[in-house]
Amino acid sequence: MDETEALAWLQDRMPVGDDCFVLEGKEADQLLTTDMLHRSADFPTGITSYTIGWRSVAVSLSDIAAMGGEAEAVVIAYGAPEFDGEGLKDFVAGAEAACEIGGARIVGGDLDRHDELTVVTTALGRAEAPVTRNGAYPGELVAVTGDLGRTAAGLRLFESGETERANELFRFEPRIELGRELAPMASSMMDISDGLARSLHQLARKNDVGFRITENKIPYSRGVEELAESATEKEEMGLFTGEDFELLFTTPEANEFELAKSGATVIGRVTEEDVEMVRGREVVPLEDQGYVH
Amino acid sequence: MDETEALAWLQDRMPVGDDCFVLEGKEADQLLTTDMLHRSADFPTGITSYTIGWRSVAVSLSDIAAMGGEAEAVVIAYGAPEFDGEGLKDFVAGAEAACEIGGARIVGGDLDRHDELTVVTTALGRAEAPVTRNGAYPGELVAVTGDLGRTAAGLRLFESGETERANELFRFEPRIELGRELAPMASSMMDISDGLARSLHQLARKNDVGFRITENKIPYSRGVEELAESATEKEEMGLFTGEDFELLFTTPEANEFELAKSGATVIGRVTEEDVEMVRGREVVPLEDQGYVH
Repeated sequence: MDETEALAWLQDRMPVGDDCFVLEGKEADQLLTTDMLHRSADFPTGITSYTIGWRSVAVSLSDIAAMGGEAEAVVIAYGAPEFDGEGLKDFVAGAEAACEIGGARIVGGDLDRHDELTVVTTALGRAEAPVTRNGAYPGELVAVTGDLGRTAAGLRLFESGETERANELFRFEPRIELGRELAPMASSMMDISDGLARSLHQLARKNDVGFRITENKIPYSRGVEELAESATEKEEMGLFTGEDFELLFTTPEANEFELAKSGATVIGRVTEEDVEMVRGREVVPLEDQGYVH
Repeated sequence: MDETEALAWLQDRMPVGDDCFVLEGKEADQLLTTDMLHRSADFPTGITSYTIGWRSVAVSLSDIAAMGGEAEAVVIAYGAPEFDGEGLKDFVAGAEAACEIGGARIVGGDLDRHDELTVVTTALGRAEAPVTRNGAYPGELVAVTGDLGRTAAGLRLFESGETERANELFRFEPRIELGRELAPMASSMMDISDGLARSLHQLARKNDVGFRITENKIPYSRGVEELAESATEKEEMGLFTGEDFELLFTTPEANEFELAKSGATVIGRVTEEDVEMVRGREVVPLEDQGYVH
């Protein structure tokens, strides 16, 4: 069983499958989400403790953002081979900085000695009307926040030893504020954790729809423009790498003007079926591939 | 910096230090707690996936119990070298069984490939009047739920290959129900994660008090009685090993009769200072030592 199969099995059994679990409340619903990051998979050589702290928190806040929620509290389980003072302090400073952007606070945690640096953040949020992954309708627009390929560019820079800029790229902004602004317009929303292509397929399956996006509308990150040496490489970095945690959402066409003000980028439309990309004069299938955590 | 120093540093910086973080609400407060368990530290050879699932959830529910709360929802981050179907199913079955006892439900999670089996559970609960670690007063009674040394006995049995009974001992009951029953009586409460001795010292420091407990009142687990080969070994298993997750609490003497009905055991009294144990005709200091996670 790989992670995809295991997740499918769990989804049949439990109410998982959206970015957060929703606990219904009287005035507002509560949102709960948890994420595990660890050295070998998520923290490349050259990453600072500050960036690790930031990123660990930001991935969970991003799940709250994806439902249009406010963030309230974060707890962190931190497992490390040793607790050197500076490393832990920098980790906490980075985590607090990400929390500040997201309007949350760190309220507790667990420390554990662990051979491999492993961080699990859990965020609790709230939303009056959480936006789920369900609700996209053919004819609607599909759009993304920010730009794509930032993490892919960061990974390249870590490899080539340009760690300062790589660390900057890795400290992405959790889109809490923008998520709340977009929520009233969005018919469905999620954060892009495994790359745009895979996220579009997930949204397509969930809504029994398709997507047609236009390649030259994709907001590639500046790092991608600079580092990619071919069109294929550019697509690889911007569409199939993921971990950018920008928001992907659908919205009725009537919101196009409002949307433009938010700074989000319309990349295409919801269709009846198939996930496709217009590249020049061609329409090509956009494969369901991406980063597997 | 070891874990104790790291925790002390964090406690100065954040509102940690009780079993759960408390988010104040209108009708009831919410409780949030997170715990990391992993193979090398927490899952001995011979432990089943079912027991791992059970125990992972139960440690977090125990934190809710320690504040007299009801459990609502649990999220689990599960990192494993591989996702074999049976292992994951047994893990979930065990986690669900512990949830059922605690009145909670598993609402989501994260799956991750990790070289070392690592499980982080986060529980969300609620309490109208959470019982904190703060509030013990000299002259009050100090008491524990259940019996002590169960995990120490389990560890011995894992070592000697008696895995069936060892697994049973490892599946401790999260004391949610009893915690709620005791909450109105308890002036302070915590769960015993690092052994009775260390927990008494933690409670003593927090309240600026002492404790005098009586050795022959300590409810040693049957496993301890059977396996310990000397009085020293018995104390080692029952007082200094921990991970039993029973509740330790203080209560005014007026509650003695009510307390007896609950099945909790009075083991001594809150004093002005020092943590001591009456052993026969002697009064000996009870050292601040225990299991370090």
